[in-house]
Amino acid sequence: MRLHDDPCSGNGYKVRLILAHLGQSFDYVRLDIDRAETRTPEFLAKNPNGRIPLLELDDGRLLPESNAILHYLAEGSRFLPVDRFAHAQVLQWMFFEQYSHEPNIATVRFWLTHGVDMTPWREEAVVQKRVGGYAALDVMEGHLSLNRYFVGDAMTIADIALYAYTHVAHEGGFDLCGYPSIMAWVNRVAAEPGHVLITDVP
Amino acid sequence: MRLHDDPCSGNGYKVRLILAHLGQSFDYVRLDIDRAETRTPEFLAKNPNGRIPLLELDDGRLLPESNAILHYLAEGSRFLPVDRFAHAQVLQWMFFEQYSHEPNIATVRFWLTHGVDMTPWREEAVVQKRVGGYAALDVMEGHLSLNRYFVGDAMTIADIALYAYTHVAHEGGFDLCGYPSIMAWVNRVAAEPGHVLITDVP
Repeated sequence: MRLHDDPCSGNGYKVRLILAHLGQSFDYVRLDIDRAETRTPEFLAKNPNGRIPLLELDDGRLLPESNAILHYLAEGSRFLPVDRFAHAQVLQWMFFEQYSHEPNIATVRFWLTHGVDMTPWREEAVVQKRVGGYAALDVMEGHLSLNRYFVGDAMTIADIALYAYTHVAHEGGFDLCGYPSIMAWVNRVAAEPGHVLITDVP
Repeated sequence: MRLHDDPCSGNGYKVRLILAHLGQSFDYVRLDIDRAETRTPEFLAKNPNGRIPLLELDDGRLLPESNAILHYLAEGSRFLPVDRFAHAQVLQWMFFEQYSHEPNIATVRFWLTHGVDMTPWREEAVVQKRVGGYAALDVMEGHLSLNRYFVGDAMTIADIALYAYTHVAHEGGFDLCGYPSIMAWVNRVAAEPGHVLITDVP
């Protein structure tokens, strides 16, 4: 299979991380978001939404959306529970990640690390995203103060999805010092055998 | 089972709609977002993220996130494919809905219909959400110009998830006149036997 990705993307890192845990080899197609390489006619023909990561199977079938890719790859593995309710809980945290976490924490990281012009509108947006991002971290901290992982007693794709941007939240100016349970969980995920870093790009 | 919901919520409507299609009876707990009834200590004890809809099973287990609830309820039914890739495609469109569609189209509808103070910052946000919302509609139109449903040849929870806020997009000032394939699909979903309206609240 082939992964279309930008090496800086935390969403792409989710896929690189599950592939590493599954021991699945893949070809890597490197795209640069900053150079709009995900908005070319060639790429839009593969994903009309113009976003990476995009998984391309050997038979040519295409799957966008990082968390849908995680689900596809993890099915049948220990990273996705088969119990109906636990399965739904994994998805609960993955939808939480895409709605309450990523748009706040990842977006600010992107603006601050990609040299985006900080207009007055965007300065105010950062203020609001700080509130939203810390609210999401509060929810995570509360859960992790009582649980070692998001669902069940072992790592699932819910942990992988939430780990991707949480462990680099400081790059967006989020301070995790007040979140001891999140910090312990970050270390727990990173200590999992087979772990790779966000900078480990083929 | 019991559904905690605000009658105005499109996310809640997703759950009411799948429950109707499944012929599943449920108790309805009505909450008013405008009166912050989802931020009381009692509700936050049930969902620390302070959001509806929230599904409460008969044994007390709790499941938030509308699309995770859809997945839980639809498992084993004709509304969720068992094929691994088709299953992932259903999730692909549901993550698209929560990331690229709902934050643009539903948020503007909420602001305009709930008397939210339109500050200059929010006026500019509406401009940006119009761009994002129409971009999401463009992706949907392209897909539906070639397909009758989002995945496969029958309605799935991907259609239910995307229908909820698309069919009331005009309430947020989005004009669907330029989207004939979306309009035909909206009518197709509404013509499905067992359909209920967003205003059909217990």
